Amino acid sequence: MKIQESYFKLDQVPGLWRSTVGLERESLRVNHDGNISKHLHSSEWGTRKQQPYIQTDFAESQLELITPPSVSISELQAWLSSFHQIVATTNEKNGDLLWPFSTPVIIPENTEDIKIAQLEKIDEYKYRAFLADLYGKHVQLISGIHYNFQINPDIEHDSFEAQSDYDDELQFNNKIYMHLARNYFRYRWLLTYLIGASPYVAPNYATNLYGKPHAERMRSIRQSRYGYQNKESVVMNYNSLEDFVTSIEDAIDSGALSLEKELYRDVRLRGGANARELLDKGISYLEFRNIDLNPYHPHGIDDETIALVRLFLITLLFIPDVKYDTEIVKGTKMNYATSEADALDAPMDIDEAKWLVTAMREVADQLSNTDNVSSIVDKVEASLDDPSLTLAGRIVEEATEYDSFLEMGLRLAKEHQQVYLDKPYLLHGFENLELSTQDVLKEAIKAGIKVRIIDSEENVIELSFQGQTEYVKSANMTRLDSLISYFLMENKVATKVLLDEAGLKVPSGTSFSNIEEAKAYYTSLPDKAIVVKPKNTNYGLGITIFRSKPSEDDYIDGLNFAFKEDHTVLVEEYIEGTELRFYIQDNKTMAIVERRPAHIIGDGVSTIGELIDEVNKNPLRGRDHKAPLTIIEKGEIETLQLKNYGYTFDSVPEDGKTVYLRENSNVSTGGVSIDRTDDTHEGYKKIAEKASQLLEASFCGVDIIIEDYTKEPTQDNYGIIEANFNPMIAIHRFPGEGTPRLLGKAMLNQLFPDVYNRG
Amino acid sequence: MKIQESYFKLDQVPGLWRSTVGLERESLRVNHDGNISKHLHSSEWGTRKQQPYIQTDFAESQLELITPPSVSISELQAWLSSFHQIVATTNEKNGDLLWPFSTPVIIPENTEDIKIAQLEKIDEYKYRAFLADLYGKHVQLISGIHYNFQINPDIEHDSFEAQSDYDDELQFNNKIYMHLARNYFRYRWLLTYLIGASPYVAPNYATNLYGKPHAERMRSIRQSRYGYQNKESVVMNYNSLEDFVTSIEDAIDSGALSLEKELYRDVRLRGGANARELLDKGISYLEFRNIDLNPYHPHGIDDETIALVRLFLITLLFIPDVKYDTEIVKGTKMNYATSEADALDAPMDIDEAKWLVTAMREVADQLSNTDNVSSIVDKVEASLDDPSLTLAGRIVEEATEYDSFLEMGLRLAKEHQQVYLDKPYLLHGFENLELSTQDVLKEAIKAGIKVRIIDSEENVIELSFQGQTEYVKSANMTRLDSLISYFLMENKVATKVLLDEAGLKVPSGTSFSNIEEAKAYYTSLPDKAIVVKPKNTNYGLGITIFRSKPSEDDYIDGLNFAFKEDHTVLVEEYIEGTELRFYIQDNKTMAIVERRPAHIIGDGVSTIGELIDEVNKNPLRGRDHKAPLTIIEKGEIETLQLKNYGYTFDSVPEDGKTVYLRENSNVSTGGVSIDRTDDTHEGYKKIAEKASQLLEASFCGVDIIIEDYTKEPTQDNYGIIEANFNPMIAIHRFPGEGTPRLLGKAMLNQLFPDVYNRG
Repeated sequence: MKIQESYFKLDQVPGLWRSTVGLERESLRVNHDGNISKHLHSSEWGTRKQQPYIQTDFAESQLELITPPSVSISELQAWLSSFHQIVATTNEKNGDLLWPFSTPVIIPENTEDIKIAQLEKIDEYKYRAFLADLYGKHVQLISGIHYNFQINPDIEHDSFEAQSDYDDELQFNNKIYMHLARNYFRYRWLLTYLIGASPYVAPNYATNLYGKPHAERMRSIRQSRYGYQNKESVVMNYNSLEDFVTSIEDAIDSGALSLEKELYRDVRLRGGANARELLDKGISYLEFRNIDLNPYHPHGIDDETIALVRLFLITLLFIPDVKYDTEIVKGTKMNYATSEADALDAPMDIDEAKWLVTAMREVADQLSNTDNVSSIVDKVEASLDDPSLTLAGRIVEEATEYDSFLEMGLRLAKEHQQVYLDKPYLLHGFENLELSTQDVLKEAIKAGIKVRIIDSEENVIELSFQGQTEYVKSANMTRLDSLISYFLMENKVATKVLLDEAGLKVPSGTSFSNIEEAKAYYTSLPDKAIVVKPKNTNYGLGITIFRSKPSEDDYIDGLNFAFKEDHTVLVEEYIEGTELRFYIQDNKTMAIVERRPAHIIGDGVSTIGELIDEVNKNPLRGRDHKAPLTIIEKGEIETLQLKNYGYTFDSVPEDGKTVYLRENSNVSTGGVSIDRTDDTHEGYKKIAEKASQLLEASFCGVDIIIEDYTKEPTQDNYGIIEANFNPMIAIHRFPGEGTPRLLGKAMLNQLFPDVYNRG
Repeated sequence: MKIQESYFKLDQVPGLWRSTVGLERESLRVNHDGNISKHLHSSEWGTRKQQPYIQTDFAESQLELITPPSVSISELQAWLSSFHQIVATTNEKNGDLLWPFSTPVIIPENTEDIKIAQLEKIDEYKYRAFLADLYGKHVQLISGIHYNFQINPDIEHDSFEAQSDYDDELQFNNKIYMHLARNYFRYRWLLTYLIGASPYVAPNYATNLYGKPHAERMRSIRQSRYGYQNKESVVMNYNSLEDFVTSIEDAIDSGALSLEKELYRDVRLRGGANARELLDKGISYLEFRNIDLNPYHPHGIDDETIALVRLFLITLLFIPDVKYDTEIVKGTKMNYATSEADALDAPMDIDEAKWLVTAMREVADQLSNTDNVSSIVDKVEASLDDPSLTLAGRIVEEATEYDSFLEMGLRLAKEHQQVYLDKPYLLHGFENLELSTQDVLKEAIKAGIKVRIIDSEENVIELSFQGQTEYVKSANMTRLDSLISYFLMENKVATKVLLDEAGLKVPSGTSFSNIEEAKAYYTSLPDKAIVVKPKNTNYGLGITIFRSKPSEDDYIDGLNFAFKEDHTVLVEEYIEGTELRFYIQDNKTMAIVERRPAHIIGDGVSTIGELIDEVNKNPLRGRDHKAPLTIIEKGEIETLQLKNYGYTFDSVPEDGKTVYLRENSNVSTGGVSIDRTDDTHEGYKKIAEKASQLLEASFCGVDIIIEDYTKEPTQDNYGIIEANFNPMIAIHRFPGEGTPRLLGKAMLNQLFPDVYNRG
């Protein structure tokens, strides 16, 4: 067939492919027996009135997960992953599962047991009660995917500029969307053939209008007359946007509809609070509501289907306009027939199907190979000749392996649940971000704060809540900290000057860039333990610790050793003790951890190498900052460290002996954090808080070496090493030992003081 | 002799050497004839009531320059350099000079013409009028150096801890300072011998108490009885702090003194609002007031003298306490005798002098070679045998080369003035800081804002004014900007997203880290001029500009070229025009410059090499960011650039032809800035201000490419390239062409809203 370039040119297809999609995934919560869950929509998912992502649909136990719009399929799936993980974490505690099919499996005999969503707005609740009366509660338990589609506005604008038939860009826009809506009504039966997926339903299922489905194994009960349908008296005219507005307003005047939103059609025109507003503001996108849940995919829709629907919609833009309402009626009949056919029946109009697929291929050919769209068209083509390749076909064939629809659904639901529960410290879908940012995002989504990734490489995100917009980098760098506070902390000289002047203990000392000056300083050395060290050292190289004032020769040896590693050398008072990291927010200590270098503890039997392997089995250990703890390596530095203490990886340390594999305590080289928030003397908290205050910080990590952190501070038993403007949340959120501290949540509470204050 | 370790051990000398010094330098302003200047104390030096650094002393034309305390001699001189430069810049405009001697050269016959300092506080003014009546105005024109000395408190504390005679640290402290004061009174005559320096005075000079000096060429008129002296009826008792308090209060009760501060002695006890307060708070430092101005040094005191006095004071701590007031009277007499002796007379008590120098050497031997103190002792020793090596000796000998004291003083004053006026774009003494920070410091000092360098390498400074303390890094990074604003600007992706969404024009485009994806993007290229460039490029390498949509082959060539330079490549819309930098403060455009790469303009005769040499003669050009403009190099990059355009350094470009030596416009590689603040269309200022606002910036540099900056902006004739969180002040403050913009001052006005609001 010949593609018709009425609105767009074929070479604009790559641009059209960057059109925006937003998905809504509905799902029933059921218990492990398949009964509808009696648990209320969880408060762990925020409040419904301020949740953009996790909502209830008709029933209290019917979830609706709503992605932000995106041009990227993987981004859409990332959003769905994160929502499903959050929901599943609560469901797991409650013994709930997400029912993977569009149609319910067990319906209570008493419809009173189907609880309408407990929405805060009483009008919303009453409206749902009215619908339940009119259409029956059963039909309202049906779930699916809604596919929101906005044509790339840049491409649409280019087309408007290039044509001469329309003077008004709004008119042009509405024409295109009405064309797309009509063609979708006309040809959607092909999608139903390919991805319809609800052949079974609970035996007692019945609708008010059409009663019980007439057959089992139909392609899609949800899209058949036994799905959610308006009364036949509701007739809409899609000839033009103007006609549509008139017809919906007439339907309300005549009482056929109670409210505009009662209209249930497979296409909904979006962009206004009501239909008439669309005339002024224009249609901004279309919502396609007839996609069944794919029970095999944890999200109810796979990447291929998202791409297939996009390709189908773009193709419809290049197919002649069906124009008349009679065609829409024809299309609806074909869709009923396709839905109500046996799942293994051939397409009802193979010629039309092939014609559509040819058009789809012509469009797909405009796309580059990287999009893999042509392989999708290949599959569609194959499915036309072999109904078992369709989704409904696969379901009915595989259903024979189960005792029942119930068993099949529960098996799939449990498999999906396992996917969601894997690696709970990550936010699924956003694993490329650093852990701390993942924690903040997870808490934000749970609280109903709108989130957006501005730059994933740099961990810059946007958070919005009730009209307030905030940007956050690396989990706690925000508007609340000033730029100069950052530099005061980054600059170790400045940090020291400010803390010292305020009477806080910092190791006294001097830095030298000239070895002669450093040597001459010997006469000024205090009569104390000192450390001579290169200004920058990663692995503790070049450090000499003197437990009391050294002889001049020993001091010079220390200097020579240190100057080998760096051109600047510090001579500092040495304080012996435990290194604690204090996490301070708004001048309050929120968490404290002790940080210990990578180590193993001997058992008198195993070699160090074996003990490392054992430690590395901890599921919290991973690599590349993508896990709370890091795999301990058996590399050069570890080998050297062991050698310094007279070990090799084959040594067998005695029972209870701690052997360190590193000098540095960083988590990224296998170190562990141990929560000490409750064990640390209040005095040190006050000290860390004062340091944060002096540095004008809102979020601050203060590192203090303390002789004994359970004892009261004196002027000599501690030393503040440094302050950090970007203290890691993850070492407190997922400590190697001890209580986790919810610092992502605390950060959000600071940034949005109202977010957790729900009275 | 044997050093007496009464309070300190000899091995504490290195610690005592780190005692703090603060200097006050007084000086008369005179005109080029040597007459006392009739210009008022300039408003360019801030207001007297809030100026910690630049004050008036007794007369309106008598400046007092006050350094903050420091342990470092070079730091003290740095402060003095900066104050002298600021003062001299104004003096040069007014035809004033700083008189280099302690004693005045021309005194008006009518004393009414000696104007008392016009202080804001009426009591202060009246007090000066009272002193003028009592002591005579002449004596009050005498100027000198005040040397404030605080014993290193850490060392004092260590000594207190180590002894058992005192229970009270305050008592211990007062004992030490009274010991030092008494010994200073007793032995100061040696300093007068060495560095007394006022052998001449105006012929009509006379004092109320002693009349005219009895001889010329005396060592120090200022320290003789013809200097500033209280009446003989004023008798003080320095046996103990308690005795001193009683004696000064008695003197006031008896009417010998009007106020405590009328007491004029060579040592003043510091640390309280009045003497009695010292009993509670302790003496915190001593002020030594008897040092004459060294006329040979622009600051009136050289490094050696600062060190010599410190050594002398520390030595006095190790010399037996003279204990009795009779010894003080003896010391005063010896000092008068030394002062009134001929400048070439031998020391009056050579044995005592040698005894003191031996002690000084014993103390100096405790210091490391790097301090060069022993060479100072050598010089002192030589001066004992040869009075011509003393400062007064040198002056009287060299004075014979001049017609008069007047001529000698004016010659020296003019030489000093030239030192102060050199490189006016720098802040003298702080040349190691970046230019922008120097500008801020200079303006802060002028405005009377207290300044402190926290970290000179990193350009972190502290500013305090009326109880408000602020930290500033690199001239405009302050508390006023938030940390996230910094990251939004640093992150080019975030900048673009925010500006683009708000409807500002940023070059549209995409970045690729994968050459295959970049190639596939060809189908999506807009039909516009584009640029393909590596994400990071210093010298314009790897950039290809296509004036219209390229062929696929050309596009791929561009990609290959760019991917050679960086692993990330940008494909962006190309906007042709002039690059302007908008400096925005608090959402207002403060300055705009055009930035042009290093270039020369041909004259049809000279070679490019010669033209570069000519351009480099501009005194604003320097190296290493220490000048507003940078020397144009003839290096590899410049050679390559010339070659690309078919030139060598020996080519002779035609008259008026501009030849660029660089692609990049950075000042650091020879580029120039041209002020365009008043020429740029208001529309672009609004755009830049909106960008700054969107990025939540207080200080922001917005770089915009504009087709024609005099014309109104449209959606297509400009593009915002980037925003900078630390825009350089210097390119506007010292533009290569056009009006300088006082951005350092503007920054201070933002940080301290009251500082320039003096009604």
